[in-house]
This record gives sequence, structure tokens and C-alpha cells, in this order.
Amino acid sequence: MKKVGVAILGLGVVGGGTYKMLTEHRELYQKTQGIDLVVENVLERNRERALSLGVPENKIAANIAEICSNPDVDIVVEVMGGVEPAKSFVLSALNAGKSVVTSNKELFCKYSHELEKAARKNNCGLFYEATCVGGVPVIRALLDNLQGNNVLSIMGIINGTTNYILTKMTDDGASYAEVLKEAQRLGYAEANPTADVEGYDATYKLSILSSLAFHTKIPYTKIHREGITQITPADIQYGKQLGYVLKLLAIGKNSEDGIEVRVHPTYIKNTHPLASVKDSYNAVYITGDCVEDVMLYGRGAGAMPTASAVVGDIIYCATHPSFRYSTFKNTEEADPATKFVDNFKSAYYIRLDAHDKAGVLAKVSSIFSRHNISVAQMIQEDEGETEGHVPLVFITHQTKEKSVMKAVDDINATSDIAEVVSVIRVVS
Amino acid sequence: MKKVGVAILGLGVVGGGTYKMLTEHRELYQKTQGIDLVVENVLERNRERALSLGVPENKIAANIAEICSNPDVDIVVEVMGGVEPAKSFVLSALNAGKSVVTSNKELFCKYSHELEKAARKNNCGLFYEATCVGGVPVIRALLDNLQGNNVLSIMGIINGTTNYILTKMTDDGASYAEVLKEAQRLGYAEANPTADVEGYDATYKLSILSSLAFHTKIPYTKIHREGITQITPADIQYGKQLGYVLKLLAIGKNSEDGIEVRVHPTYIKNTHPLASVKDSYNAVYITGDCVEDVMLYGRGAGAMPTASAVVGDIIYCATHPSFRYSTFKNTEEADPATKFVDNFKSAYYIRLDAHDKAGVLAKVSSIFSRHNISVAQMIQEDEGETEGHVPLVFITHQTKEKSVMKAVDDINATSDIAEVVSVIRVVS
Repeated sequence: MKKVGVAILGLGVVGGGTYKMLTEHRELYQKTQGIDLVVENVLERNRERALSLGVPENKIAANIAEICSNPDVDIVVEVMGGVEPAKSFVLSALNAGKSVVTSNKELFCKYSHELEKAARKNNCGLFYEATCVGGVPVIRALLDNLQGNNVLSIMGIINGTTNYILTKMTDDGASYAEVLKEAQRLGYAEANPTADVEGYDATYKLSILSSLAFHTKIPYTKIHREGITQITPADIQYGKQLGYVLKLLAIGKNSEDGIEVRVHPTYIKNTHPLASVKDSYNAVYITGDCVEDVMLYGRGAGAMPTASAVVGDIIYCATHPSFRYSTFKNTEEADPATKFVDNFKSAYYIRLDAHDKAGVLAKVSSIFSRHNISVAQMIQEDEGETEGHVPLVFITHQTKEKSVMKAVDDINATSDIAEVVSVIRVVS
Repeated sequence: MKKVGVAILGLGVVGGGTYKMLTEHRELYQKTQGIDLVVENVLERNRERALSLGVPENKIAANIAEICSNPDVDIVVEVMGGVEPAKSFVLSALNAGKSVVTSNKELFCKYSHELEKAARKNNCGLFYEATCVGGVPVIRALLDNLQGNNVLSIMGIINGTTNYILTKMTDDGASYAEVLKEAQRLGYAEANPTADVEGYDATYKLSILSSLAFHTKIPYTKIHREGITQITPADIQYGKQLGYVLKLLAIGKNSEDGIEVRVHPTYIKNTHPLASVKDSYNAVYITGDCVEDVMLYGRGAGAMPTASAVVGDIIYCATHPSFRYSTFKNTEEADPATKFVDNFKSAYYIRLDAHDKAGVLAKVSSIFSRHNISVAQMIQEDEGETEGHVPLVFITHQTKEKSVMKAVDDINATSDIAEVVSVIRVVS
């Protein structure tokens, strides 16, 4: 039986899961895959952590050089996260002729061009299914299943932390701050939650997914990004009343006008398949010109679901004698010919804090009309939190982002009428 | 640029879609995949059909031999359906050194062992993503993404016709016969609907999917099969009242007790992700020991969604220099060591037509109790359709299939008490 040696860099959540899966399933893979997958080395500063997972002392490497020079290691698994030292380690491994499997979205998003170049030069494999949406099989679906389509759009709930927070805010009516605290206590959010709640994590993943979907490099810096820290229970409740669920959505669209990529809080119709993706579950909804709609749903994070994606890549790498990297133009920057749409079209939810006096609705309506914004739904409450003020909620028809922003400025300039409290995009 | 020649056997719904996709996207594939995919031949008895699709006259082959001896044909696409002549044609193609892509579930389910043997002998590829669930990327997910898992169960809505019929019966309260007629008119059901409505189509697909998931051959003859022709609007309504949606579910389970495979109408909790899969949409819900729950959702049939799967395989075949077949023990019969569970456990919905007199519930309860069946929910109506009779509906806790069947016999034997009208399994 073919023996394949694996080294794991980093025994954190995903690394620990990967070690556990490989060691506990060794016999399963001998039987079902015809290969003997053996963990030959781990690299982990926290020696106690490694020993507590059952790693034999002689398999704990002192440094990356020891792993690169170990002839029994065929595949190096990078599950450390962050750019450095992960990047140097991966390049060392590739240059030593080892294939690499990584779950590191930040590294892959920012430096895939460098990593792929090194992989090609050394005739090594480079696999990254685990960089996006944990156990959900989305990378290979884009590369090997949907690759015959002209992909029109990709919409995803691709961050578990924010989906957990928004689900709790929706179900319990709690505030963002309260739910964040609970999520941190339960381990769903990190002590410093910025990467998740401000949408950075989602932009890294959307950069990778949309580059694959649209066959051209989409740098994460081109992605319009807004987080969920400003979301209030009131907005969630008004959304509910109007038939919408609030999600942090990653959206990529490819049309004749160009490519449009954005991550922001979004209302989705409560009948849309993405609306029922709750808690820490994730899903990606892809529309192709031939396949129509496909949704891939599952655990977007966590030790074992992500390990499942890592081990899937390890087995693929070990059982496929010729390697494959990616099919998009894996460049550092976007192709100069790629047009990015920033003045995109969307429906909008606009909530105002309006003075409770006659003529306000007429004045607001005339501002909307001036910017060619047409209103689809409206709620005007009898009374608000502050005396003399009432909430006024609009859902618009499809309109241009910049028109809405100008209308918001115009409304805010007339402070005796109303102030804009929130503007949230709507997918219908 | 590498030129890859394709021949399409059969220009029906899927074949026509495949021809359209390949010809309309030829430039796209040159640009994104670096290959020139050219349709070199088609085999279609209906010459008019071929010409109306735009096939040049000189590309219409007279017979399979012409295609097998055409040196420009690299990949043969079989989208004819049925066992013969599809089987002979596929074997001829493989023996002529052509790789094969097929969407033919019946052929692949029944003869994959023969086809794979011929493919290996001739060092050709054999791809079959389109055999199961149209554009939903489930075969490759099982082979290349989830293959590191011990798959515990697979549950699928994998037949579009029956899901369309059950959705309409649920939403409109219409009878099976009425909706079937409408479905036939709209092209969602065939003139002879047996293969779909009696569950044969679903057993072919479940045979393929569970063989891959459980790494051992699961012949379709081992699958317990019941169709939807006996379903009444009343059952659907009682299910609704109890919080369930009725679906034709294909279920495969792998546990220490053995393998359990069945296709039958099933109530699913209305909060389950499969419950919201409506109309002709399909979905497969897979549970692995590491990945936890994954759901793959999309169009399970139709010209272009299925063509998307066919073309995905064509491109994979054309761009992957070394081929891969399957990882399950692709034998004709089940491995003698495989244990099949027929007395499986499930919750049950049991509807009785009961005599409206004192003591009936007590007598039925005592029959349930005698067979160790514990009741979870009950509805007793005030009045029924026939005077002196009332409907009595039970949902049981998990119990053994054979115990339920014995209890049903016992109840029917006491015809002065009640008669069993329907027994439907429940997934909670």
C-alpha cells in the first residue's frame, strides 16, 4: 500500500482536528482509499498541546527546516493562520518539493499568486478547499462542477461568528453588544472580534470564491466592506415585519457592466433558501447561466468540519498523481481589463427618525423622487422613542447606490424634517 | 491550444442542452479552461431534431461504429437513457479508447461494474456526475470532498417530478391524480410516470450515491421502495397540523447494525433544511462523522442544469491528464460481508379510520403497547367523512418497522374498532 507522509504546521483548532481525523481514520483510509496516511511531523510551539493530543514526542519538529528535510513527509498541511510565518513556511515546503494543503484564507487570498508560482516551479500540489466555508464543498464545486457555466452571481453567508450573532439578535431581540459577549463566552467569537464582525474574514473568502467563479483575480481590496457592529434590534424587527431576514452577505456579480463585489449586512426575503441558514451554519448560493441556482450548505467553521475539508484535500493530493492548481488568472493584482462596478444597483431599506409633523412624508418623497428612487414599501409608526419623533421605514425598488447616498445626504441636510438612522441593502 | 473532440449520443432533453452549452460556450472554455472543445459527432435517429439544433449535416453519424472510428473524437457523451442500446454503445466507445461521460442513472446503477472494467482495461475515463440530481454537485462532493469522513447518513429529495407533485398537493390541497395530470401537461411528469412516482428513479440514484458514500456496492434491488401514488391530501394536511412536510425521501444509513437503504414518502419536521426544498428543486443532506451536516441543493433535472453536470465532467476529463473512476468496490453484487438492515427503526405516522364509540382509543393503545410502540403525538377528530367513523392520527416515537407492521395487522384484525388508512415514516 502506498504510504503518504503528512506534516501539520500548527495544532490549533483546525490542526488539532486534522491530527485527530488522520490518526483515528488511518485504517478507514487504508480500506477505502488504498493509501496509508501517516502523520510524520507536527510543528507546534506549545509542546504540551501537542503531547495532550497524543503526538509522539519524536514527531514534534524543532523547526520548519526539519520538516522540509524529512524525506518521509510528502504533504505539508498549513493550518496556522495569519500571513507570517505561515507564508515563509509554505514557500519553504513547496521549494523542498512538498505538496501543500492550507486552510489559511488570509494567506491564500493575499499571496496565492506567489504560492502557486512556487508550486508550479517545484511540480507540487497546492490545495485550499479549507480556506473557504469550512466543510462546505464550494471550491471544488466551482473548479470541477460548475466550471462550464458563466457564473452570474455568488451570494454567501460565509462567516459563522456574524451569522451566529445576527441569528441570536433576530430570535431573542437582544442587542449586538449583549450577543457578542455571549458569543465570546461560548467560543463563537474571538476576544478581538474585528476580523469577523467588521467583515474582513468574509472579504478574504469572497476574494477567493469570486476569483474562481469569474476566472479572474478579484483582490480583496476591491471589495466594498461593511460590518455588523451598527445593526440594532429595531432594524431587525422592521425587517421581519416587512418579510426580510438580516444577514451579513458576501455578494459577487458578473455582468456586462463589470464585476461587483461587496460584503455588507443585507436583508433577504424570508422565503429565500439563504434566509433559513441559521446560527453558525454557512451557505453559498451560486447562479450559473446553465445550472441555474445551486446552494451549498454546512458548517462553515469548527475543528472537525474544517478538518474534513483539509483531509479531503490531503486524500485528493495523495490519490491524484497529476496535480491541479486553479483555473483563474492567479495574478497579484486584478487584470487591468477587469471593470469593477462601484455604483451598483440594489434595493434599499432606509430608516428615518422623522419629526412628527405634517408634510414630512411629502418632503422625503420629493427628495427620493429627485434622485429617481422609487419606494416599494413603507412603514410609518404612530410614535417613536423620542417625543415628537416617529420612525419612518422605506424599502426602495432597485436603484443606484450613489443615488441613495445622495438622497441620504439631502435628507440629513434638512434636519428639521428627518435624520437617516440606517441604510441597509436588500436582496429580493 | 489543446483540441478535444466530443461526440454526443442522443439529442433529447439533456443531449440538446449539452450540444447548446458546448457550442455556445466554446470561446468561454478556450479562455477560461485553455481547451478547445469541439462537437465532432452526434448520434440521433431523429435527423430533423439534430438539424433544428444547428448540428451540421456532416456531423450526424450514421452509427456508433462511425463515432468509435473517428480519430477526432476523444470523449463520448452518453445521454440516451435506458439500458440498451446505451450500454453497448458505451462499451464500444470505451473499447475504442474513448473516455465516456454519462448521465444515464439506470445504466450506471445496474452496470457500473462492467463499464468501469472496460474503462480501466482501455485506460479511459468514466464520469457520471450527471447521473444523480442534475446540476447539484453531489458525486464529486462524495468522492473528492467528504471522502475523509465516515458517512453516517445521506437523505435526499432526488426526484423532481415527485417533489413537484407533493409540493403542489401541499400548497393547493389538490389530489394526487389532479396534480399528476397538471405535471404531465407542464412536462414535469412523463406520459408513463411509473419510474418517477413509484420511486424507481430515486432508487437508481440512491444506489449510486450510497455506494459512494459507504464505499461498498449497494445494489438498487436492496433498496426498500414505496412510491407516492397512495398519498392523499388528508395525510398532507394532518402532517402540516403536526408540524411536518411530506416528501419522497431517499435514505441511506450506515451504522454498526449495518446498512439501511430506502425510498418512501416521509414526513420531515418543517424546520429541517430539506423541508424547504420545493417544486422541482432537489437536495441531498449528508451527515459525516467529521463534517457534520452538509446540504447540496439545486435543480435536479432539466436540460441546462443536467447539461451543466455533463459539461463539468467533459472539462474535467479533458483537463485532467490522469483519470479517476470511483472509490467504491464496484462489484456486480453487494459484498457478502455487507449487512443490510430491513427491520429498521423510524418514527411513524399512523392514520386510522376509527369507529366513533367509547373505548376505541384504549383498545388501539393497548395494541401499540403490546408491540412496544410508544405514542408521541395524537389527533382525534370530532367527526369524519363517514358517519359513525372518526379519523385518529398517531405519531410514534422511534420504533421497529416490523413492530409497526404487526400492530397494523392487529388493528385491522379488529374491524369493529378501527382500520388503518395510512402508515408513513417520519424523520424528526
